[in-house]
Amino acid sequence: MNLLILEDGDFIAADRVLLSGRRLKHLHEVHRAETGDSLRVGRLNGLMGSGQLLRLDAQEAELSVQLDQPPPEKLPLTLLLALPRPKMLRRVLQTVSSMGVSRLVLLNSYRVEKSFWQTPFLEPAAIREQLILGLEQARDTVLPDVTIEKRFKPFVEDQLPGIAAGTLGLVGHPGDYPACPRAVEQPVTLAIGPEGGWIPYEVEKLNEAGLQPVQLGARILRVETAVTALLARLF
Amino acid sequence: MNLLILEDGDFIAADRVLLSGRRLKHLHEVHRAETGDSLRVGRLNGLMGSGQLLRLDAQEAELSVQLDQPPPEKLPLTLLLALPRPKMLRRVLQTVSSMGVSRLVLLNSYRVEKSFWQTPFLEPAAIREQLILGLEQARDTVLPDVTIEKRFKPFVEDQLPGIAAGTLGLVGHPGDYPACPRAVEQPVTLAIGPEGGWIPYEVEKLNEAGLQPVQLGARILRVETAVTALLARLF
Repeated sequence: MNLLILEDGDFIAADRVLLSGRRLKHLHEVHRAETGDSLRVGRLNGLMGSGQLLRLDAQEAELSVQLDQPPPEKLPLTLLLALPRPKMLRRVLQTVSSMGVSRLVLLNSYRVEKSFWQTPFLEPAAIREQLILGLEQARDTVLPDVTIEKRFKPFVEDQLPGIAAGTLGLVGHPGDYPACPRAVEQPVTLAIGPEGGWIPYEVEKLNEAGLQPVQLGARILRVETAVTALLARLF
Repeated sequence: MNLLILEDGDFIAADRVLLSGRRLKHLHEVHRAETGDSLRVGRLNGLMGSGQLLRLDAQEAELSVQLDQPPPEKLPLTLLLALPRPKMLRRVLQTVSSMGVSRLVLLNSYRVEKSFWQTPFLEPAAIREQLILGLEQARDTVLPDVTIEKRFKPFVEDQLPGIAAGTLGLVGHPGDYPACPRAVEQPVTLAIGPEGGWIPYEVEKLNEAGLQPVQLGARILRVETAVTALLARLF
């Protein structure tokens, strides 16, 4: 935890918060914090700054906070991601949040196993938990906007053309395609497939919606690694 | 497993292998393979090609193999990595292997907890296992060369100048440094610090050995994510 994230419900005054639960445990066990210590804090979807520990015991911690710095800029990116397997989903959500993605769409694909849609990790509170872990890691406060689209065709036909309009639209796909561009200057809409890749019909539909296939070389990367590699190359 | 890796001990003739254990289990449970199926195979540190399943039962699988394709090129990179915590180490080894790093040095640093050096995941067989998982994922056959340096100063003073000579030497370090370069054309020696970063003395010593500090922006990434992001940007 490189940033202690404060939520609206933590505030007992404009510059005073009370913490318990996971964050209190982390202060005790990892930070080994003591009264008087100063910590980096940030208000969820708001400013960052510093907090001073006024009081810390087994039940709660009280901090006085000063919030005066803006969070880092987000990447101007809408990421469409074929739903990964549940264990990978949790890590990918953290990565997406850490790297500053603005908007994530978890999308169905032919090669997404139907059982993946049953995971409790897709519940809003579970998604939010992983996103916050990513923000704490990266020192950011702004949650990415995450939506779930269980039907590929209506999403790609009806919504994607509007999302992709005015952006650089790309589909990560192995094969004889141009290499993924580097250091782009415009907003991007990027689609990354499931293990085993998109099927040709899906590549065609994504293409019709304005996304051009690009590749990253012969190596097949895990979804989490591919997301990081494509984002690091694009921005 | 996108490539079935064959080891010398598997060969019962120049074009014939017998498999058991983990790979047999994978053929049964994940590939749901049957006699006659064709699979992508590669000989460890050798060529890749295809294998045909001649026989498959609960005890073993026999394949006839044809090996005629070179593995993908390695990145011309020596990566010095402050030893990560054991759980992260396993994933980082897979990532390093998947991404095609030629040479990895696991190095001590002031902020590496001493207990990390006690992990069984540092034993040669455990390291090799993770590297092979990475090769299977990426479709590569060539193991990276991994060495372990438990003493920072003698390694950085005595060996690193020779390793870094004739390469672009870089230290990933947050702060007011130039941005990490993109799409470089020469071999690279890159040092990535522990959680919490290198201490100033270490940055100075790495610098004296020929490595210049570069940064990746304000966001603090987990070690595994930072490795992937730096490599994707550099190559």
